[in-house]
Amino acid sequence: MATMIGLLAAIAVSAAAHCDEGMWTFDHFPAETVSKSYGVDITPGWLDHVRLSTVRLTNCTASFVSAEGLMITNHHCLESCLGEQSSKDNSLMERGFIAADRSAERRCATQLGDVLVSTENITAAIAKASAGLGDSAANAARKKALTEIEQTCEQASVKSRSGRLKCQSVALYEGGQYFLYRYKRYDDVRLVFAPENDIAAFGGDPDNFQFPRWSLDFAMLRAYENGKPAATPNYLRIDFAGPQANQLVFVSGHPGSTSRLETRAQLEFDRDVSLPLTLLRNSELRGGYIQFSRGNPADLQLIEAPLSSLENSIKVRRKLLDALHEEDLMARKRADEEALRRLVRTNGPDPWAQIESGLARERALYLPYTFIEGGAGFNSILFRYARLLLRGSDERLKPNDTRLREYTDGALPHIEQQLDARVPIYAEVETLTLSFSLQRMQEWLGPDQPLVRRLLAKDSPESLATRVVAETRLNDAGERKRLWEGGRGAVAASRDPMIELARSIDGDARALRGQFDDEVEAPIVAASAAIANERFKAYGTEVYPDATFTLRLNYGTVTGWTRDGAAVEPFTYLGRAFERANGVPPFKIPDSWMKVKNRLDMHVPFCISTNNDIVGGNSGSPLIDAAGRMVGLVFDGNIDSIAGTYWFDASKNRAIAVHPAIIREALEQVYGAKALLAELGSS
Amino acid sequence: MATMIGLLAAIAVSAAAHCDEGMWTFDHFPAETVSKSYGVDITPGWLDHVRLSTVRLTNCTASFVSAEGLMITNHHCLESCLGEQSSKDNSLMERGFIAADRSAERRCATQLGDVLVSTENITAAIAKASAGLGDSAANAARKKALTEIEQTCEQASVKSRSGRLKCQSVALYEGGQYFLYRYKRYDDVRLVFAPENDIAAFGGDPDNFQFPRWSLDFAMLRAYENGKPAATPNYLRIDFAGPQANQLVFVSGHPGSTSRLETRAQLEFDRDVSLPLTLLRNSELRGGYIQFSRGNPADLQLIEAPLSSLENSIKVRRKLLDALHEEDLMARKRADEEALRRLVRTNGPDPWAQIESGLARERALYLPYTFIEGGAGFNSILFRYARLLLRGSDERLKPNDTRLREYTDGALPHIEQQLDARVPIYAEVETLTLSFSLQRMQEWLGPDQPLVRRLLAKDSPESLATRVVAETRLNDAGERKRLWEGGRGAVAASRDPMIELARSIDGDARALRGQFDDEVEAPIVAASAAIANERFKAYGTEVYPDATFTLRLNYGTVTGWTRDGAAVEPFTYLGRAFERANGVPPFKIPDSWMKVKNRLDMHVPFCISTNNDIVGGNSGSPLIDAAGRMVGLVFDGNIDSIAGTYWFDASKNRAIAVHPAIIREALEQVYGAKALLAELGSS
Repeated sequence: MATMIGLLAAIAVSAAAHCDEGMWTFDHFPAETVSKSYGVDITPGWLDHVRLSTVRLTNCTASFVSAEGLMITNHHCLESCLGEQSSKDNSLMERGFIAADRSAERRCATQLGDVLVSTENITAAIAKASAGLGDSAANAARKKALTEIEQTCEQASVKSRSGRLKCQSVALYEGGQYFLYRYKRYDDVRLVFAPENDIAAFGGDPDNFQFPRWSLDFAMLRAYENGKPAATPNYLRIDFAGPQANQLVFVSGHPGSTSRLETRAQLEFDRDVSLPLTLLRNSELRGGYIQFSRGNPADLQLIEAPLSSLENSIKVRRKLLDALHEEDLMARKRADEEALRRLVRTNGPDPWAQIESGLARERALYLPYTFIEGGAGFNSILFRYARLLLRGSDERLKPNDTRLREYTDGALPHIEQQLDARVPIYAEVETLTLSFSLQRMQEWLGPDQPLVRRLLAKDSPESLATRVVAETRLNDAGERKRLWEGGRGAVAASRDPMIELARSIDGDARALRGQFDDEVEAPIVAASAAIANERFKAYGTEVYPDATFTLRLNYGTVTGWTRDGAAVEPFTYLGRAFERANGVPPFKIPDSWMKVKNRLDMHVPFCISTNNDIVGGNSGSPLIDAAGRMVGLVFDGNIDSIAGTYWFDASKNRAIAVHPAIIREALEQVYGAKALLAELGSS
Repeated sequence: MATMIGLLAAIAVSAAAHCDEGMWTFDHFPAETVSKSYGVDITPGWLDHVRLSTVRLTNCTASFVSAEGLMITNHHCLESCLGEQSSKDNSLMERGFIAADRSAERRCATQLGDVLVSTENITAAIAKASAGLGDSAANAARKKALTEIEQTCEQASVKSRSGRLKCQSVALYEGGQYFLYRYKRYDDVRLVFAPENDIAAFGGDPDNFQFPRWSLDFAMLRAYENGKPAATPNYLRIDFAGPQANQLVFVSGHPGSTSRLETRAQLEFDRDVSLPLTLLRNSELRGGYIQFSRGNPADLQLIEAPLSSLENSIKVRRKLLDALHEEDLMARKRADEEALRRLVRTNGPDPWAQIESGLARERALYLPYTFIEGGAGFNSILFRYARLLLRGSDERLKPNDTRLREYTDGALPHIEQQLDARVPIYAEVETLTLSFSLQRMQEWLGPDQPLVRRLLAKDSPESLATRVVAETRLNDAGERKRLWEGGRGAVAASRDPMIELARSIDGDARALRGQFDDEVEAPIVAASAAIANERFKAYGTEVYPDATFTLRLNYGTVTGWTRDGAAVEPFTYLGRAFERANGVPPFKIPDSWMKVKNRLDMHVPFCISTNNDIVGGNSGSPLIDAAGRMVGLVFDGNIDSIAGTYWFDASKNRAIAVHPAIIREALEQVYGAKALLAELGSS
């Protein structure tokens, strides 16, 4: 297997022979390499079965584990769902949830499940649509063509035998290839089981991205069709015995985003601009959340889920920044880039230089774009509703293929699902987030920036946020539905202050979007495709594409690593979790466990370390053995896995999974979930 | 005037002929250059008068403006004093303060005023003390020698005609020269006048480091001796008419710290390690402060002063980081460094490489050192008292010249002043800051770091902070006095939980301090001195030393600059402040002004922009004309002045001062401060 642009060879020469790096698409999986290295044959049937058992959630991965639509994923993937099901007095995050029977399973109003049915290479069609045009016109033509292809696909599926499909295009190799992906979509997904957050996230933020680890980060959902549990003949049987050390294991899932094929200049932009500024905003918000909840457990549960996801994102970005400050890795990146540049034979414009000039424009636009169009100045669920309603009412009047891509016909059903969802919105939290973000926009754009001056001429960030949150009616799903269905007329007539806020900035926001698309995105997309083609010429497609939150398969082994000269073993066991507990979250073991402590087997394995190549989006991915059985549930990586966004270091990048044995122990001994265990085939 | 290592020449060739860069010591001021460029003779008498009129406060600059000890400085320099004089029900930050007569002037319990009396070059003595020793032994010998010289000087002064002096050593040129500075110290400094914070800090954090500007950032103190106003024959007369555009002006003051002579590797350490990590901690704390105060004005005033100083430090570091990401400036820095390195003729060890290896050790020690010895894990006034008491009781038993330098006999009076000060301490705020810092220490060092594990085995950061703050008695000045006077016996017997906390980490903290001193400080100090000597050989001492919070004099002119192609005028006027106000802090003009608005002259000048070379520590510095009169009060720089830590960009680095005319207008029309005006010589 060709290593990724030589980078890996430099990092770990000895491992390069059968290094388990790579986020492969299912139609380009290196089965021969696996066969040679491990003596295991991965057949087309195996691949189809695993693919059809894997589910993409809105921000995570899940897999079917019974023929009746039962899915397993991570607890942390369901924080939104658990929040939606909670009220101030009853927090499912805190208490957990077990559906007494199927009728008690509760719909996750904003969740979806997509199963990849087929894929088609559309690179030629997209190339044709934008051929001969300048960057900016080509960029627009490309988007138009992608919308048309998706639309045609969805319309055709309605009439076909296989039934209605969700069709989405995907750019692989930073635009070197385009594919059309067809999904079967489940839009009725219900909560079946979730443990208490104290055990699911045991160790909390301090232990996040750490191993050894003792987090029971699993939960269960069920896909429904026509109000009944979906028939899912393709599912993964769980082998509760789990894997052995050094055993070959696969991860099927949806790694969200990597930047391994990006240019040195793009990484420097991350390092110098976007990561530091995002970290500063997020750190401040984190301080606000923590102080908000201090001393009042009732308030804590209002922000538990957003705080936990914010803390996760802070840790990720902090480690990404550390990675980009490792000079020897950046030096190798530069060397690899120079090597490829030397192979270029054409006399056209230098695409690396084109990217640099696009990034110079991005630097100039970064603050206003981020705060105004990117929404960093308006951090509020209610504001996001307002923008969806406002823009939706304008965009739907346009022909499908000229709309902003997030408002095409294909995207509308999920927008409607979000608007219809009756999720609790807490005014205190909305005021907090909106006021923080307005305040930072005022500081960073400056009080004299025209839009800032207009908004805050007679208001402070605090008074503006308090007023619009208190007076808006967009926390009422009925009102949102009325405005959505009323279209432009209803929205234009609305005096709702949140709609008015969105309206008052929309001109500026759209102008920035246009500038960004034409001056940043267009040249960078064009240049990236040119670089991808140079790379294909030099290395073929034995280089895997960057992650794009689409389905990938990766192979590896159950293994620890060496840290500061000491071996880290690949398994942890329950007993140590009790020793680690101090009775105070995040190191508190819930009462449900303390009560049955005597019955529990302290030697049951808890978590697993493997060298699979995963990143965020892989959360909830099944760990699968060569026989196609599930032998673990991926929920995290170690701290060195975060740099995996930029490069895979085989010597220390590790995935972390929940061991199936602790899942069975919990369901049996703690939660008495007999029906579930039976459905999972455990007697 | 030789430009600073060629850097400036590259930035602004045209201005280099008489560029006004440089923070000169008074005994090495380039009077000839000023004479040539401006035709103005700066005499030894002028220099003495200005030096003796300038006062160093604990963290700022002030100057005498009457013969009876009256001083003017910035309002923001007195935030601590105003906080100390406040209670939950009566905030002097909010309400301002005017002493009805001298008996009503209120002592700032922790403030000091130092006036520089004389200086002496002690480089040879220090070199002799450490000659022939290895880096680490030399470092210890150097500190011992500095303590001895200071001690001898103070003892000699007691018997001398001039009276008791404060003697402090100063390392100039990163240790290329050592000086002994002798000060007359005023330890009884009283608050005379302060306007309301809403006008003093008008524009708040959004306008901080911005120009045009309308902040009345001034306040007045008086130095006392033997309970009476001090006789201060050297003082600056205020010229209330202020300066003209393009007029030559001087700034006499105490720039705190610059890094213009540091190596490229040292700047990269700031950029990649210390600045980002400090910013993240501070941003989170800022979020906590803001949320703490949200919606409750009573709570706001508890954190107004610390929040404002935190926000200032965040803005400074954010812009320092931006500066270090300007690739062309870093490239010039590298080129200058290479140029100097090529001139080195000796065959000894390469001092630049020595600094790099010291920094590699600093990187490795950075997190534990910062949190444990640096105190970032224990952010609490009460904890700092505990450490002062604990370490003070140990250090005072040692011979003076072997103590930690901050506990030498010369340092004890100010420690005692701090411990004795009856300043209000708010338990809510202490719990907030301590708990945030413990939490971040737990995250960044990891829950399994031995000290973290020991502290938090049965506690959360929150519960530990709450308990020790609630149960400590160190908020009582009497108890602190008892422990200080009781010495090691009393402290060792104390079961005060804050003392116990400090004690429980002191072994680790001192061990880290020792490691840092030997492995980081020692080689870097030695190598920096070697580089300084190479620089003297190459460029002489026409290069000025980096700022060290000691007295410096700088010259420049009243001038605006060109921003985005538009001219920024050097003066602002009162009328625009009223237009800018929106009634909500930080854009609220206080009622005292609104009531007399009709009487005010809207054309009175408010703030001044000059191209003087200043940084933090210069706050409160007088702006002085060639006749030695005060024509402004420096309180800030523009946003481009922040990069002045690393280099002076003559084209846009600007100082900002309060115009004396607005000071008179305020005292006359708003505050009716007739006695003060008379003392200032304004009829």
